Amino acid sequence: MSKAANRLCIDGGRLWQSLMTMAEIGATAKGGVCRLALSETDRDGRRLFAEWAEAAGCRLSIDGIGNMFAHCAGRDDSLAPVLVGSHLDSQPTGGKFDGAYGVLSGLEVVRALQDAGIETLRPIEIVNWTNEEGSRFAPAMMGSGTYSGALALEEVLAQEESGGGQTVAEALTEHGLAGDAPVGERTPHAYFEAHIEQGPILEAEGHTIGIVTAIQGLRWFDCRVEGMEAHAGPMPMPARKDALLAASRLVERVNAIALEHAPDGRGTVGEFRISPDSRNVIPGSVHLGIDMRHPDADALAAMAAALRVAYDDLEGYGGTLNEIWYSPPTLFDPTCVAAVRNAADALGASYREITSGAGHDAKYMADICPSAMVFIPCRDGISHNEIESAEPEHATVGVDVLLLAVLEKAQEPG
Amino acid sequence: MSKAANRLCIDGGRLWQSLMTMAEIGATAKGGVCRLALSETDRDGRRLFAEWAEAAGCRLSIDGIGNMFAHCAGRDDSLAPVLVGSHLDSQPTGGKFDGAYGVLSGLEVVRALQDAGIETLRPIEIVNWTNEEGSRFAPAMMGSGTYSGALALEEVLAQEESGGGQTVAEALTEHGLAGDAPVGERTPHAYFEAHIEQGPILEAEGHTIGIVTAIQGLRWFDCRVEGMEAHAGPMPMPARKDALLAASRLVERVNAIALEHAPDGRGTVGEFRISPDSRNVIPGSVHLGIDMRHPDADALAAMAAALRVAYDDLEGYGGTLNEIWYSPPTLFDPTCVAAVRNAADALGASYREITSGAGHDAKYMADICPSAMVFIPCRDGISHNEIESAEPEHATVGVDVLLLAVLEKAQEPG
Repeated sequence: MSKAANRLCIDGGRLWQSLMTMAEIGATAKGGVCRLALSETDRDGRRLFAEWAEAAGCRLSIDGIGNMFAHCAGRDDSLAPVLVGSHLDSQPTGGKFDGAYGVLSGLEVVRALQDAGIETLRPIEIVNWTNEEGSRFAPAMMGSGTYSGALALEEVLAQEESGGGQTVAEALTEHGLAGDAPVGERTPHAYFEAHIEQGPILEAEGHTIGIVTAIQGLRWFDCRVEGMEAHAGPMPMPARKDALLAASRLVERVNAIALEHAPDGRGTVGEFRISPDSRNVIPGSVHLGIDMRHPDADALAAMAAALRVAYDDLEGYGGTLNEIWYSPPTLFDPTCVAAVRNAADALGASYREITSGAGHDAKYMADICPSAMVFIPCRDGISHNEIESAEPEHATVGVDVLLLAVLEKAQEPG
Repeated sequence: MSKAANRLCIDGGRLWQSLMTMAEIGATAKGGVCRLALSETDRDGRRLFAEWAEAAGCRLSIDGIGNMFAHCAGRDDSLAPVLVGSHLDSQPTGGKFDGAYGVLSGLEVVRALQDAGIETLRPIEIVNWTNEEGSRFAPAMMGSGTYSGALALEEVLAQEESGGGQTVAEALTEHGLAGDAPVGERTPHAYFEAHIEQGPILEAEGHTIGIVTAIQGLRWFDCRVEGMEAHAGPMPMPARKDALLAASRLVERVNAIALEHAPDGRGTVGEFRISPDSRNVIPGSVHLGIDMRHPDADALAAMAAALRVAYDDLEGYGGTLNEIWYSPPTLFDPTCVAAVRNAADALGASYREITSGAGHDAKYMADICPSAMVFIPCRDGISHNEIESAEPEHATVGVDVLLLAVLEKAQEPG
């Protein structure tokens, strides 16, 4: 995409090149990315981002949970900044765009403003939040959650990695990823985050831009189903307490509960580990990690209640069902949503309003400052997958929209 | 149990003490045993058995797959021996009796004959077969299968451990567990194996002894169900290909197929691993390790066919379903079964005839020489579990029966 005269545009080629270069860090054989939070590859991704941000004239600061802020000075640098960013960590078999697109969009906004010789009234800060994915360390959105005050820093630092191992504090120390900036001291003027949709709606309807008005509420559960280990041969079928059979019925129910709250309900068992996992032993116990979502808080509560009933209905089995995280539905700030809509209108982009099915760092930021998000389509709606893909044209238009929205907020007086 | 005058009896206290001492090797916190085949703990168990056997005057030989033979000379040592034994390896969360009872029963038979000053016509050999469980290295009953010629030595030695790692050959070398005796050169005169029932029938009916007339046929399958990884939030329910949901339905079907072939059919999914196993990612693939059993070959074939139909019915999913092992039903030798019955009659023990639901080394031995088994009850029918338990009285009577049966065969002329 070439620059139109008299219109502020980003450099789509540079943006795409940055995305592809970042995707080389932790690249997987299947074309995806594995940059688990606070791992060596995450460290390398952070270093590259820091180099690029400093080359773009930004001043870098890092806080105690590893959140990175690249500060691009405003004409009045004492005013609260406009934050723009996302996260560089990925799922174990993640894609090139989830998170990285948001951080590198922020970088491209700053680069484009500099190319155009525009100095904003307020400072702009590109942010890379620590551990958005929650895959290696629970919970997800750890950096923004701590920044916003929703999560306690000490508790988060002591969190051990899934399956046992390092704590967050140990991983930060090992790779030198924590800085001395206080966590969440400043309240930004506004927060914007660009992201792939991670769903099929924009692509199916032929839209380039999703103006995100809300984020679904989410409930996470740890469940343990306990039966009785026994030899798979001699034990008669009626005498068994097969924990896998019971857990399988729970998987079926989680799916059914989501369908009973169609079209917005979501129910997923993403973690599932049986013990002892030996072919000729009837499974004695199963761990299930359950994820339920709905944009309506009451509907989500009803789904959680139905899960409890399904669990209690597993007669003859022991175990536990614990809710480990509740993230209520979020409504984004009308003025920030309007800034995104104004930008899309100005650019003549095809758009629709949309609810985010995924959690994002913008969720926590919305608790402390006016926030909004810009979505672009991803191929077949697939994300959290190595084949995750997006079109360069969509990526470019997404950042064009982001640029105008950021600019609108960054020119607002104090 | 004290020795009755004029009646050949084993020393139940000594037997029990040997069982408890062996159970200290690889002892788990929950009272069970973890002596995975060819591991360090297996090595230690083998060393202890070798010490005891040599102290009982036996000459030890070990073959190329690690099978151990403790030779107790007969009056005509050129005659084919009577073999008696089982295995010392265990499941990862196994019990004190599965396998160890059979090996130490053989040891107690030899000790008791020596105490009584009885020299048999034929030699008696106590055998410890390598890797009966098949938990670390597939397939199960590896040592006896190789000895009998059912499994090819070279292929078995090259077998890699489940989940990747050492081969059988490498594990044998690491712990110095292979010997120079040729594998399966000699055909024994007879083979006896004592074992806990690993099912609830003897206990429920109040019998002390099970005279095993047959072993169920068994089919093992590796199954892979492939769906599509995607983010658990945005992806609408109808657009998903959740591999865990499909695999859960297969678990339900395996259970139903076994019930459709009641009361003898058995169906178990003992291995189950999902990928990527992250809470907010819809599972992309699942590995299932499936175990089906039936004492009737035709019924077992029908069960396998029904599994194939269930797999093919998973519309919209990819994957594979491969049968990796078929072990046909086994009928034990009438003369060996009669020797066990004669012994039980002579001792006045309460017994019934029974089909073994589990595979045993006796299965492969029955292919090459007259064989039979003696079962004793185990508490609640539970085995392949750390709480596996048996009564000392039952253990003693079981070896009393075994002793007389072995003696009958060991006095048969060449």
